[in-house]
Amino acid sequence: MELFKKHEQTLQKAIEANHHRGFFAQFPEHPSPAVYGETADADGLNAFESRLNQAYKGLEHSKATGWAGAEESPYSRQALGVTYPVFSLETLIDEAGAAGKIWKKVSTADRAALLVESLERVSKRFFEVAYATMHTTGQGYMMAFQASGPHAADRALEAIAEGYEQLSSVPQQVLWNKPAGKINLQMNKYWRAVPKGINLVIGCSTFPTWNSVPGIYAGLITGNPVIVKPHPMAILPIAIFVEELQQTFKAAGLPSNIVQLAIDTPQQLISKQLAEHKSVKIIDFTGNAVFGNYLEGIAGKTVFTEKTGVNSIILDSTEDLDKALGNLAFSVSLYSGQMCTAPQNIYIPAAGVGTPGGTVPFDEVVNRFAAAVKGLYENPKAGPFVLGAIQSEATHQRIQATAAAGAKVILPSVGIVNPQFPQARTASPLILELSSSEKQMYSAECFGPIVFIVKTKDTNESIRLASELAEQHGALSCGAYTTNPETKEAIIEAMTDAGTTLSFNLLGGVYVNQNAAFSDFHGTGGNPAANASFTNSEFISKRFTWVGYREPAA
Amino acid sequence: MELFKKHEQTLQKAIEANHHRGFFAQFPEHPSPAVYGETADADGLNAFESRLNQAYKGLEHSKATGWAGAEESPYSRQALGVTYPVFSLETLIDEAGAAGKIWKKVSTADRAALLVESLERVSKRFFEVAYATMHTTGQGYMMAFQASGPHAADRALEAIAEGYEQLSSVPQQVLWNKPAGKINLQMNKYWRAVPKGINLVIGCSTFPTWNSVPGIYAGLITGNPVIVKPHPMAILPIAIFVEELQQTFKAAGLPSNIVQLAIDTPQQLISKQLAEHKSVKIIDFTGNAVFGNYLEGIAGKTVFTEKTGVNSIILDSTEDLDKALGNLAFSVSLYSGQMCTAPQNIYIPAAGVGTPGGTVPFDEVVNRFAAAVKGLYENPKAGPFVLGAIQSEATHQRIQATAAAGAKVILPSVGIVNPQFPQARTASPLILELSSSEKQMYSAECFGPIVFIVKTKDTNESIRLASELAEQHGALSCGAYTTNPETKEAIIEAMTDAGTTLSFNLLGGVYVNQNAAFSDFHGTGGNPAANASFTNSEFISKRFTWVGYREPAA
Repeated sequence: MELFKKHEQTLQKAIEANHHRGFFAQFPEHPSPAVYGETADADGLNAFESRLNQAYKGLEHSKATGWAGAEESPYSRQALGVTYPVFSLETLIDEAGAAGKIWKKVSTADRAALLVESLERVSKRFFEVAYATMHTTGQGYMMAFQASGPHAADRALEAIAEGYEQLSSVPQQVLWNKPAGKINLQMNKYWRAVPKGINLVIGCSTFPTWNSVPGIYAGLITGNPVIVKPHPMAILPIAIFVEELQQTFKAAGLPSNIVQLAIDTPQQLISKQLAEHKSVKIIDFTGNAVFGNYLEGIAGKTVFTEKTGVNSIILDSTEDLDKALGNLAFSVSLYSGQMCTAPQNIYIPAAGVGTPGGTVPFDEVVNRFAAAVKGLYENPKAGPFVLGAIQSEATHQRIQATAAAGAKVILPSVGIVNPQFPQARTASPLILELSSSEKQMYSAECFGPIVFIVKTKDTNESIRLASELAEQHGALSCGAYTTNPETKEAIIEAMTDAGTTLSFNLLGGVYVNQNAAFSDFHGTGGNPAANASFTNSEFISKRFTWVGYREPAA
Repeated sequence: MELFKKHEQTLQKAIEANHHRGFFAQFPEHPSPAVYGETADADGLNAFESRLNQAYKGLEHSKATGWAGAEESPYSRQALGVTYPVFSLETLIDEAGAAGKIWKKVSTADRAALLVESLERVSKRFFEVAYATMHTTGQGYMMAFQASGPHAADRALEAIAEGYEQLSSVPQQVLWNKPAGKINLQMNKYWRAVPKGINLVIGCSTFPTWNSVPGIYAGLITGNPVIVKPHPMAILPIAIFVEELQQTFKAAGLPSNIVQLAIDTPQQLISKQLAEHKSVKIIDFTGNAVFGNYLEGIAGKTVFTEKTGVNSIILDSTEDLDKALGNLAFSVSLYSGQMCTAPQNIYIPAAGVGTPGGTVPFDEVVNRFAAAVKGLYENPKAGPFVLGAIQSEATHQRIQATAAAGAKVILPSVGIVNPQFPQARTASPLILELSSSEKQMYSAECFGPIVFIVKTKDTNESIRLASELAEQHGALSCGAYTTNPETKEAIIEAMTDAGTTLSFNLLGGVYVNQNAAFSDFHGTGGNPAANASFTNSEFISKRFTWVGYREPAA
């Protein structure tokens, strides 16, 4: 309970922030020496480098059957050489089961305090997490720091806070006192939040901590033991979170294996075996739609997915076309379009885009957009750092294949020279132009730096296509530019019905890709892109059941 | 908004009651003339009788293709002769779609007020609902009044209150004000609760209003249009609720068809067609496991089910064996065991049951229990009214088939003479004795007045069997009698893990079958008997999605 006192105020602030949804952040997002210490960056780099070509011994490994790991840096194109303990399926399940029996008896307050404590411990290693993220995902330094460190920790805290609040929302005990004629019927009633069972969290290759920690912390706060199965090419960042969780549990006299890291080797993929195991009751997944749909279809599991989607921009009219196009150029370039919220389809009416100086013709809009993108990636002080590297060879090949598919190429994808990492796998955004009738080209997700300009009859067609694709194929974001209140209302109607988060008229330092903890829901659960939402009430409540017991009052 | 002022206090009281979970009831449960008026009962009977052999014209029927109905009273064994409007599938879906577009734009406060208003209107017809319930379900008068009237209305109000609170839990608008160096990034953010789509509610034959109104009102408060598909043999009670909802909407200038009654005819069953229709997004179902599992398996639907289960009594030791057996005798007799919460398996250790006067041998416990049951149904002032009638011929036949299955018959099932309805289909509880090894006999639900006494090695085996069957086959209730604190804790552990609501040591006027609104969750979602719970947060939150939109602040 001492730990609870230490973190109570943080928890209360987080609960309030969840309700208010204005700005709140517990962990500073800037990798500033003033905040994190003069040597924090260098120390983090050193810690990262000293892990290379080593077995990762900080993780619980007493029952390991071997060590494996095959990560490779998209920047250096070299193997990281880090190996992680490998466990048998039986060991993972048995350890989770045994640890879960103890964890479920820990009070909500103590669970919350331990989980916040683990985040504070991780925060001391944010720079190490950042370098680990860069060299697995290809993210630029700033994004790697922010997304995998403070932003991920904030989303974890958001889940802890929502869980703490929900678990406190039903009384532990109450006297039920029912008038019944001359007497009162009196019952003591009690309720327990019963955890569902082992929570499997399957990570992705591009956001190994940001997309996984909400599920990990949601599973833990509700009393479930968690098995973290990272993407085989992006293990190190989340291994650091798991290590700190394990150390936190150990320091409190609890089993380390309340959370376990379960890595895949190419020789032995384990996601399906784990997911189908009868003791695994909850699954969090970020990744492709085929595997996500398979997971959602396993009977008797509670499954939270973030899958693929087709994100849209609707360009109707704007107060400042240059700023709008500059904002969009940044959005499609950031981490080379490898964000699940990055725009793919930009719908522009054939007649052009309205501005205060009159309508700008379609071709001019397209060309000015291409120029803005080119200007960004050709700027040596911005380009390499904003674009980062391409995480996988498959994404790199998809760019080539899409370029060759026959559409009009507005801007070809080229390699970007990264002065620090000459070997980096890089690619600037490919921009293609399509007619609205070529739906087969633009109706599926083309993951990576690929942008389709879709020429539409008018904005009504743009809205129809954006909402139809969101409903049919999913979408996690939609950006819209309009100065017409009626058009705006039509877009709100269509896209909210399609369960798609909307951003209007972004011109400055906020981008359609960004979803802030304690404010923006990430995913809505309202279209095929995701059946879950960070962090709505269901993201917590589906992980446990309220069970009551009662007895006549003495 | 005038209506909201009228009902605001009721809503606030209901919200508080949902949190407190102590006793609360908005609608008086006693059919007392002092509360409901001197002539209310006679007026209700008269209203019911005047409906017989008539078309039910109070329901919206302008687009009906015909009229049909095949209900029959389990008391009089006569057809009711009430016919209801029949609509084509297209009409039902189109009307729901059109009405839904208007309903979703009605504010949460106005929706809540309209729904409470409809319950107040129904409360004027509770006696009519009671007679309609008696003569479709076979319930006794008192249960028919309480369960279908005030208790159902309370559960509906509970859902309205939970919905109103949830829909108010995310701000409609907030200023997000993020410090970013010298400036602040400022965004106006907005959220909408977007209803998922048409909500289909499929009713059951035994509790046509109590089991359906939570889904109906949960669907409506969250902005979805609702199609109510009652069991073909139990339409009239819920038709009265639908009529009053339609009249309430009409009086407010809204489309009646925000809620529609869709009846089946034996020639044209429509549940599957409705359930599989792409515009139906939410399904509430009470009924058999086969159909429930089929519904849960339809991709892309949000499905709430209450299916079958095997409810247990664990008899270990008690302060007062006579009172315990008397309480159990009432529980198995009430509405002839046709409650989803009625006990089926009574686990008694071979060595007997502990009491203050020493251990009472197994055979004596069994015989005293049988005597208590017999004493109840042979009491002419209690038996016919507590037992009511058997709703369906299938249940009646199941009693005969089970009696003939070869197990030791402790108490045969006999017909009960009902002085008021000599033709009534009645059956007293059949009590059989089994060894714990004869699991194939007692591990499935035998719906109706059928009780298995299972002789176990000891209470540990009783607990193991009760929890195992709950986990594998589902359970909605478990009663336990023990004076040993360790045994009690073991039962709590096992049965809460099995997601089963527990009642300890019931001796007096509270029965294991009873779940009170605003206090007991009905179902937990934690075992195969039900994936839903009246009314936990998910019962509401799964019916809509939060979708945000945002724009830079001016």
